[in-house]
Amino acid sequence: MSLKWMSLLLLIQVMYCFNAGSCGKVVVLPMEYSHWLNVKIILDELVQRGHEVTVLTSSASILVNSGKSSPFKFEIFPTSLTTEEFASLFKRCVNVWTYEFPKYSVWKFYSRMQSMFEEYSDVFEIFCKYMVFNEELMKRLQESKFDALLTDPVVPCGRPTTILELMAKADIWLIRTYWDLDFPRPLLPNFEFVGGLHCKPAKPLPEEMEKFVQSSGDQGVVVFSLGSMVSNLTEERANTIASALAQIPQKVLWRYEDTTPKTLGSNTRLYKWIPQNDLLGHPKTKAFITHGGTNGVYEAIYHGVPMVGIPLFVDQPDNIARMKAKGAAVRLDFTRFSSEDLLNALKTVIYNPSYKENAMRLSRIQHDQPVKPLDRAVFWVEFVMRHKGAKHLRPAVHDLNWFQYHALDVIGFLLACVAALIFIFTKCCLFCCRKFPKSGKKKRE
Amino acid sequence: MSLKWMSLLLLIQVMYCFNAGSCGKVVVLPMEYSHWLNVKIILDELVQRGHEVTVLTSSASILVNSGKSSPFKFEIFPTSLTTEEFASLFKRCVNVWTYEFPKYSVWKFYSRMQSMFEEYSDVFEIFCKYMVFNEELMKRLQESKFDALLTDPVVPCGRPTTILELMAKADIWLIRTYWDLDFPRPLLPNFEFVGGLHCKPAKPLPEEMEKFVQSSGDQGVVVFSLGSMVSNLTEERANTIASALAQIPQKVLWRYEDTTPKTLGSNTRLYKWIPQNDLLGHPKTKAFITHGGTNGVYEAIYHGVPMVGIPLFVDQPDNIARMKAKGAAVRLDFTRFSSEDLLNALKTVIYNPSYKENAMRLSRIQHDQPVKPLDRAVFWVEFVMRHKGAKHLRPAVHDLNWFQYHALDVIGFLLACVAALIFIFTKCCLFCCRKFPKSGKKKRE
Repeated sequence: MSLKWMSLLLLIQVMYCFNAGSCGKVVVLPMEYSHWLNVKIILDELVQRGHEVTVLTSSASILVNSGKSSPFKFEIFPTSLTTEEFASLFKRCVNVWTYEFPKYSVWKFYSRMQSMFEEYSDVFEIFCKYMVFNEELMKRLQESKFDALLTDPVVPCGRPTTILELMAKADIWLIRTYWDLDFPRPLLPNFEFVGGLHCKPAKPLPEEMEKFVQSSGDQGVVVFSLGSMVSNLTEERANTIASALAQIPQKVLWRYEDTTPKTLGSNTRLYKWIPQNDLLGHPKTKAFITHGGTNGVYEAIYHGVPMVGIPLFVDQPDNIARMKAKGAAVRLDFTRFSSEDLLNALKTVIYNPSYKENAMRLSRIQHDQPVKPLDRAVFWVEFVMRHKGAKHLRPAVHDLNWFQYHALDVIGFLLACVAALIFIFTKCCLFCCRKFPKSGKKKRE
Repeated sequence: MSLKWMSLLLLIQVMYCFNAGSCGKVVVLPMEYSHWLNVKIILDELVQRGHEVTVLTSSASILVNSGKSSPFKFEIFPTSLTTEEFASLFKRCVNVWTYEFPKYSVWKFYSRMQSMFEEYSDVFEIFCKYMVFNEELMKRLQESKFDALLTDPVVPCGRPTTILELMAKADIWLIRTYWDLDFPRPLLPNFEFVGGLHCKPAKPLPEEMEKFVQSSGDQGVVVFSLGSMVSNLTEERANTIASALAQIPQKVLWRYEDTTPKTLGSNTRLYKWIPQNDLLGHPKTKAFITHGGTNGVYEAIYHGVPMVGIPLFVDQPDNIARMKAKGAAVRLDFTRFSSEDLLNALKTVIYNPSYKENAMRLSRIQHDQPVKPLDRAVFWVEFVMRHKGAKHLRPAVHDLNWFQYHALDVIGFLLACVAALIFIFTKCCLFCCRKFPKSGKKKRE
């Protein structure tokens, strides 16, 4: 398997694919962190509708197998890694991406990126080998006769294969965006854009939190989170942020697990966990400071909240660039922004009404769909189970080799025709010149 | 306007487009025959949902303004042509395409096709001029403040413009196919595939017809129609068909308006009109002999009836080729098939179970959609009205000129960079050679 590198390309916009089956039993090979939180929404709905869901994960699982009671069956295969080692891999990646990459030259960036992805790929190759060479597990899975496989191509793993072969087998691609976040571009009929499938109307906040939010009066509140992978910052960054937040008239709810920054204002409260969707749906929420992860951005779009984006890694800069282009966000550069930059960004998205208007416009697009994203996602999983696949949506391009894909056979044939014509024409001319050389001369004479 | 020719390209798969608006008032510029029958289904549904529909058509209208009472308002503008002249244009086109084209060489085919399309285009240019230069009508339309325009790009007409400009203005494209009839291919987010939107469960047949159908016993019936534009045939073709139909054990219902063919069997009945959808949905129906018009093919797909296709013109050969490739139809060549050919084709689709199975498979695909095609079509018309367009689905490619579209500016810049590098490199080399010409010589010496 040479899976190194390529996964980054897929990470950004494609998420899960299904393979053939008929009805009732789904096996899932998920990814960790926000990917798991997102796919879990689909799995919960499948269980609600009476399907049996089996989650395939390693003994080093971080969030997937949290040990809590779950409506899913678990198939946990042993690996040589521990949960701590696995989590530290992600932590290292996040730190390198967040703090080191911005300082690098282009060449150093690419060489460091490559070595990072090699490390990342090696770990997933270990998981993959521990899974596919576990004969007992493979036998049990085969005997289970699953109707559909739901997988996340950011961790591709398979039966000797290439990534292209593996991809081509997917019947349906559930893409984790929609045309509010994304810009229109060509797609294939087996792509279903289900971005925001996890969003739902806000539930009431915990009592203490509601009191704090209400205490903000007409000024309202700002919600701040850097996502499930980043829970602490360097002291310098934390103080820069805290001192900016201290200067705004809004109250701030900041999800942060590290020690309290010295410059923290009385208007700002730190929380180890926040009910993010419920907060973003609260009528007092004026702005969202976000790292630009797809889940958070979609919650802000759903509830029409303008954003200050501080993107850190992978698809986050892309997401924020899109929100900025659509007029619903201001972007800050994580390693470089000053307190004043953050303060100005917050003032802009809160007091320039165009940001709220654009966020509301995106919200209307998100809400006004013929079928809700979660229902569409579940529909196509069930479709694949009912019809043993979705072959009618599979483009024939997957059956072409690279030669045919680029129409080189057609071009070659046409060139051969042209060459043959030129050859015949030249031969004819030469023949004529030799046959009647004197007639020409005579005329001239 | 140079609209000549291009319309054919669009005729086949794109049908109606909408322009910006908010809610409630739709103006429609429709096409005649099957195009009108199809779009009328959407208009009926819009009226049902309380919208006001105004149909814009010429005094020469054939089916659009049938004179019967209608739930739509009509804006009828005068033209120099009569209904009879307009209808005879279509009749001539159909005859040329059906009887003359199959005998032509490729070159003659294209030259005749071009002259035919010129004639066709001239007529629609007359209509267009009579419409857009009718100042009183234009003023009335402008004052009506419509919320959406629903039009059929097979008769493009407009603001001095090019066909590309006109096309680029569409917010939503309702495509008259789906992935049962069509093969998967790349598409854009503002394409909605609503093929089969006119299909519905079968209603009971008229009493006399039901008696005839029931009299077929276990053998069942065959339904035969060549669509709304072809109601008669040459005597030779009619007799060839009738003698083949006389030899099958099924009863046959044939939509045919001309004189009774001499070879007509006692098992075949001629009808000036048939309730085609109800007949195709009847449990006794075994096969459908069709010219391959999209509407008829979709009724056969919806009810899972295998087909014998006798395509005549425009998109019909294409539709039948698709049905043949998907194993739900046998194709016959209209000008050439013998009685035996038709007999064999009918035996094949009736007695080879794979044809019924494939037709049923396509039927299941058609029925198993998250939202019915008609509801999707109406949803997007209403969306365009609610949101004054669907700009979020409009690809930015429409704003590029041909130079940018083909990335010639990018390629040009890169080539200039390469040229500059080569130039600098060469100059440096020359400079070095001139500066140190002797040192090289000395070393060699």
